Amino acid sequence: MEQSFVLKGNICYSKTKDQLEIVPDGYVICEKGVCKGVFEFLPEPYANYKVIDYKNQLIIPGLIDLHIHAPQYSYRALGMDLELLDWLEKNTFPEESKFIDLDYAKKSYSFFLKDLIKGATTRASVFATLHRPATELLMDMFESSGLKAFVGKVNMDRNCPNFLTEENAETASVTTMLWIENTMHKYKNVFPILTPRFIPTCSDELMRKLSAIQKSYHLPLQSHLSENLSEIEFVKKLCPNSKYYGDAYDQFGLFGGDYPTIMAHCVHSDEEEIELLKNRGVFVAHCPSSNTNISSGIAPVRTYLDKGIPVGLGSDIAGGFSTSIFRAMSDAIQVSKLRWRLIDDSLKPLSMEEAFYLGTKGGGAFFGKVGSFEEGYEFDAVILDDSNLPSPLEFSVKERLERLIYLSDERNIKGKYVGGIAINLDFTLI
Amino acid sequence: MEQSFVLKGNICYSKTKDQLEIVPDGYVICEKGVCKGVFEFLPEPYANYKVIDYKNQLIIPGLIDLHIHAPQYSYRALGMDLELLDWLEKNTFPEESKFIDLDYAKKSYSFFLKDLIKGATTRASVFATLHRPATELLMDMFESSGLKAFVGKVNMDRNCPNFLTEENAETASVTTMLWIENTMHKYKNVFPILTPRFIPTCSDELMRKLSAIQKSYHLPLQSHLSENLSEIEFVKKLCPNSKYYGDAYDQFGLFGGDYPTIMAHCVHSDEEEIELLKNRGVFVAHCPSSNTNISSGIAPVRTYLDKGIPVGLGSDIAGGFSTSIFRAMSDAIQVSKLRWRLIDDSLKPLSMEEAFYLGTKGGGAFFGKVGSFEEGYEFDAVILDDSNLPSPLEFSVKERLERLIYLSDERNIKGKYVGGIAINLDFTLI
Repeated sequence: MEQSFVLKGNICYSKTKDQLEIVPDGYVICEKGVCKGVFEFLPEPYANYKVIDYKNQLIIPGLIDLHIHAPQYSYRALGMDLELLDWLEKNTFPEESKFIDLDYAKKSYSFFLKDLIKGATTRASVFATLHRPATELLMDMFESSGLKAFVGKVNMDRNCPNFLTEENAETASVTTMLWIENTMHKYKNVFPILTPRFIPTCSDELMRKLSAIQKSYHLPLQSHLSENLSEIEFVKKLCPNSKYYGDAYDQFGLFGGDYPTIMAHCVHSDEEEIELLKNRGVFVAHCPSSNTNISSGIAPVRTYLDKGIPVGLGSDIAGGFSTSIFRAMSDAIQVSKLRWRLIDDSLKPLSMEEAFYLGTKGGGAFFGKVGSFEEGYEFDAVILDDSNLPSPLEFSVKERLERLIYLSDERNIKGKYVGGIAINLDFTLI
Repeated sequence: MEQSFVLKGNICYSKTKDQLEIVPDGYVICEKGVCKGVFEFLPEPYANYKVIDYKNQLIIPGLIDLHIHAPQYSYRALGMDLELLDWLEKNTFPEESKFIDLDYAKKSYSFFLKDLIKGATTRASVFATLHRPATELLMDMFESSGLKAFVGKVNMDRNCPNFLTEENAETASVTTMLWIENTMHKYKNVFPILTPRFIPTCSDELMRKLSAIQKSYHLPLQSHLSENLSEIEFVKKLCPNSKYYGDAYDQFGLFGGDYPTIMAHCVHSDEEEIELLKNRGVFVAHCPSSNTNISSGIAPVRTYLDKGIPVGLGSDIAGGFSTSIFRAMSDAIQVSKLRWRLIDDSLKPLSMEEAFYLGTKGGGAFFGKVGSFEEGYEFDAVILDDSNLPSPLEFSVKERLERLIYLSDERNIKGKYVGGIAINLDFTLI
C-alpha cells in the first residue's frame, strides 16, 4: 500500500520553529511511506519514481490537531455564551450522553469525519465519549478514512450528571481495559490513548487505576489542564493536597515522563506548573479559539516555546467551532498579539513561521517523526490550490502560504497523503 | 426597477440590540423598494404580490460594512507582523500609490467588488485612495454592481511618502470639490463621503478646507480615531492644543453633529472622547479583526452600546483580512470575551443578538432606515442556505443563524436584495 513516488510543486515546511524552508518548484520524495527529503532537482536514485506534478500548487506537511472532541462536532458554533463548567453542564454532557446509541454515534461521527477528511488535517488526538462501543466505532471509522489518530474512550466517574457517568472506578477500569485489549493491535492507523476527562470528573481511585493501566499497556495519555479560572478553583477544592493543578495529575504518575502526554489549554499555568510541563516533556495543545469562545483567556505560548516545552495546536471542537488547523494558526497569532498588547509586552507575538511550525512539526512530534519533510519523517502531505484567492499582486511562495493560513478553507485542499497513502477527500462513511 | 414582491422563509431581524425577531416560515413584504413588515400569514392587501418561496432558508437584512479600504484588498492577509504606523508605511502606502494607474485600479477593484458581491454585505462605507479618477472608477463599478455605498476619495497632505501625497491643501481641496461635483448627483446607489485619512496625514489647512467643503456640499464624513497607542501619541505631538484625539477633529468642526460621521476603531477613546462621540452622534465602526491583527487592542463596545452611541461593524480590509461581516460579528463576540476576561469584567461580553444587531441595524442607521425588516425600512435582504453545515441535531431558526454567524462563507449566500432590487451574485466587472 505505501508507495514510492515524488511530488513536484512549491514546497514549504519547517525544520525549526523560526524558519520556513521553501523550495519553489521542488521535489519531495516518498519512499514506502517515509520522506527522503526535498530537492531542487530530482536526484538520480529516484529518477525512475513516478512524479506527480502539482505544478503551481503548494505542498506542505499534513496539519496536526492535538486536541479535538469528536462527539461535540454536532453542536459546534452554538451556545457560546457560557464559561467552561456551565458550558459542559448545558451543552456537552447532554450531547455526549447520546453516544450510548450506536446509530446516533455513526451519524454524528460521519459528519465529523467528513469534515476532517476534506480539510488539511492528517492526524489528530481525539476525545470520544465514555461509551466503549461508540469509541470503537469511531476508531473503525478513522481507520477506514486513512487519517491517523489517537482516540480516547473518556473516563469520568464523579461530578458528572447521572446520565453521563461511569458507575465507579472499578467498572470504569474494567471497561477501559476491555477497550484497550480490543483496539490496541487492531488498526494500522488508529491507537488508543488514555483519556481521563479532567481532574474534576475523575476520582482518586479511578486515577490510581488508570496509572496502573498505563504502566501495564504503555499507553499515551491526554487530558485538560489549567483552562479556566473557576475550573482551577474547583480542582484546588477537590485536591487540597496538590500544589497546583498539574500536581493533581502528577500525584498519580499521570503527568508525562515515561509516557507521551498531551495537556490541552494550559492557559493559566503558573511557574511551578510550567516547570513540571517542561521536566516531564508534556505536550501543550494550544487551543486559541476555544480559550476565547468560553472566555478562558490566552495561553502564554511564547513562554512554552522559549522554554522548549513541546507545543502543538488543537481545534478543540466544540469549544472551538472550526476543525481547520489553518484557522488555529491564525487564531494563535491573533490572540498572541492581544496578549502582548493587553497583558505582557515582554512576550512578543507569534510569527507566521512559528504558527505554521506549531500546526505541523510542533504537534507532529507527538506522533513521532511527523510534520516535516526532513529525511526520515513519515510522509504526510497536503496539496494547496490558492487560485480562488485572486489579487493583482505577484506573491512569493511564502506570501501565498501566509494568505492560505488566513483565508483558506476546504476548497483549497486538493490532495492529501498520510503515511505515503493518498486520501480520498470525498470519502463518505455512511 | 424597484419591484413589489414577497419573500417567504425563516425570517430573522433586529428591532432592538437585545432581541432577535424571528418568524419561522414567514412573509416579508417589499413594496417598491421599501419593507412593509414581516407577517406569519400573508396579509390580504398583498395577496396578489408575487411570492418568492425560499422554503427552509433564512432571510435576514443585508449586512452593513461601516469601514473598508477597497484598494487594500489586494494584500489582505499579508505582512501582519506590524503595528499601525509601520504597517501603513510598509504595506499600505506603496500599494495605494498604484491607483494612479486606472488599469491597475480596475483590475484590483474588480477582485474587491467580486468578493463583496458574493458575500452578505449590501452596503458599505468605503475608503478609496487619494486619486480622483480611480475613486470615480470605483464609484462607477459600485453603481453597476447594485450594492449601495458611500465612497471616499482620501485626503492626505502631510506625513505621507512623496509617492502618495496631495501636493498641498489647496490642490487637495480643489480636487476634492471637482470629485464631489462629478459624483454627488451621478448615481442612484453611490454617494461621495468626505474622507480625511486621519489627523496624522491631514494638515490644519486641509482640515479647515474640508470643513468648508462639508458645509457647502452637506456631505457625511469618515475617518479613523484612537486606533493605536503610537498613533495617539503622534496626534498629541501634532496637535498640542487638542485635549484628546477626537478634539483634533472637533476643532475643525469635523466631528459629527450636523453631518453624519463615522469614526473607525475608537479602541483607546477616553471618557471625554466617549462623551463627545455620544454628544455628536458619531458612529463608531468597530473593526475587531483589524484591531487584533495590527495589535491595536480591543474597543469597549459594551460601553458604546450602554451609552447609546451608534455602533456598527467594519471589516477594515486590509487591517482585517475577511470581507465577511458575519466574521466581524463572531470576531466582535470573541474579542469582547477576551476584554471581559483580561481587562475589565464589569463590561460583559457581547451576545449573539447584539453582534447581529451591530452588523445589520446598528451600522445600517448610517444609511437611514436600513438594516431591519420593520415597516418603512429600505428593503435589503440576504438569503442564507445552511444545508452544507450538517449535524444530527435539529436546530431552531435562531440556532441556525448563530451557526451561520460562526461558520458561513459566500457559499451560504443564495440571494441578495438591495433597496428592493435583486443582485446578481455572479456579476463580473471585467
